[in-house]
Amino acid sequence: MSTLIQTETQSPLFSEVIRGRRSVRQYDKSVRLSREQIKELLSEATLAPSSSNIQPWRFLIIDTEELKEQLQPIAYNQSQISEAAAVIVVLGDTEGYYKADQIYGEAAVRGYMPEETAKTFAERTKSIYGSLPKEALHKIIYTDGGLVSQQLMLVARAHGYDTVPMGGYDAAKLQAAFEISERYIPIMLIALGKAAKPGHPTTRLPIDDIAYFNEMPAAE
Amino acid sequence: MSTLIQTETQSPLFSEVIRGRRSVRQYDKSVRLSREQIKELLSEATLAPSSSNIQPWRFLIIDTEELKEQLQPIAYNQSQISEAAAVIVVLGDTEGYYKADQIYGEAAVRGYMPEETAKTFAERTKSIYGSLPKEALHKIIYTDGGLVSQQLMLVARAHGYDTVPMGGYDAAKLQAAFEISERYIPIMLIALGKAAKPGHPTTRLPIDDIAYFNEMPAAE
Repeated sequence: MSTLIQTETQSPLFSEVIRGRRSVRQYDKSVRLSREQIKELLSEATLAPSSSNIQPWRFLIIDTEELKEQLQPIAYNQSQISEAAAVIVVLGDTEGYYKADQIYGEAAVRGYMPEETAKTFAERTKSIYGSLPKEALHKIIYTDGGLVSQQLMLVARAHGYDTVPMGGYDAAKLQAAFEISERYIPIMLIALGKAAKPGHPTTRLPIDDIAYFNEMPAAE
Repeated sequence: MSTLIQTETQSPLFSEVIRGRRSVRQYDKSVRLSREQIKELLSEATLAPSSSNIQPWRFLIIDTEELKEQLQPIAYNQSQISEAAAVIVVLGDTEGYYKADQIYGEAAVRGYMPEETAKTFAERTKSIYGSLPKEALHKIIYTDGGLVSQQLMLVARAHGYDTVPMGGYDAAKLQAAFEISERYIPIMLIALGKAAKPGHPTTRLPIDDIAYFNEMPAAE
């Protein structure tokens, strides 16, 4: 109880959050989050940037026992699906750029940019995105989906919760089971809850193997 | 001076970092980061998770005045390229899964998993990734690239620096100018430095417009 109160009133140190986040696969089935709590996590997650601020991310949150059970075989029976408090299906909206009017219009209302600029930005954005080849649009959506997903996992940890990102699921079955139209592309599943057991430690490649100053390395 | 000392010795609060990060387009040209500092930021950024822990991200750091000038027209003359201390080209390595032996082998050396498990994981990962269609492999690379990029931008802010992610550049010219082989896919550019002027505030879509509990919304 005291932990919960503490995490709600005092943000932890940034370094604790990035070092404390682990991919957790075993969850305490007695811990559930309210929808308000989940929405608060998503509000903080979506402070992440996106290409042209289009925010193409959408979130389908599965938090009933029945639907988690339905999702579990679609995610190759990974037990965290049913044990976690919720599973968040991170989606990319291939028509998300239609919201450019709303996004830039709100920026004008708040005085962040002149109204004329907002209109110009919105028209230009819709025109550019509307003429992108599918592969280029998908690249943006996946990348922006990664940005917001990382911030979501860190935000969850900062509030005392745990997550695991999952790429192992049958996307076609997921879209059919949850009536997700082709307009939306599944990016990943993120299980959310309280760890029953800590995640395993994992290794990282040495920085000198993956970071190059001013020129690429010779072919390996 | 005191700010620098403070950021090096005491991590800020997580909430300050996510709320303080802004896309910054004007940089203090007098502030430069050492290569050790940049590598420290990348070390913390790469604590982010990735699909099968393959860490397909690679970083080409452009930090000389000459090369930043060469990059600037490739990024459509955005002035942050030359003003920032460095520009980090975030790349995805389409052959990154070959490092599975190194990654899982190190996990076995550290006692995170038995050696036999590590070998099995490495073989299975190489087999699965090696047979993925190009589009599926690119999806993973872009998404993982987004995960690490978001953590990098937050880490930079936590250390008192600013960033801006950039998707606006000519990828073919970038690959030619810096001799980046086709094996690597550019994901984004991230300018890194100290803000000369704060980034503009931006708006976010209301959570109720983008988060759905248990069923997708009716078509708009």
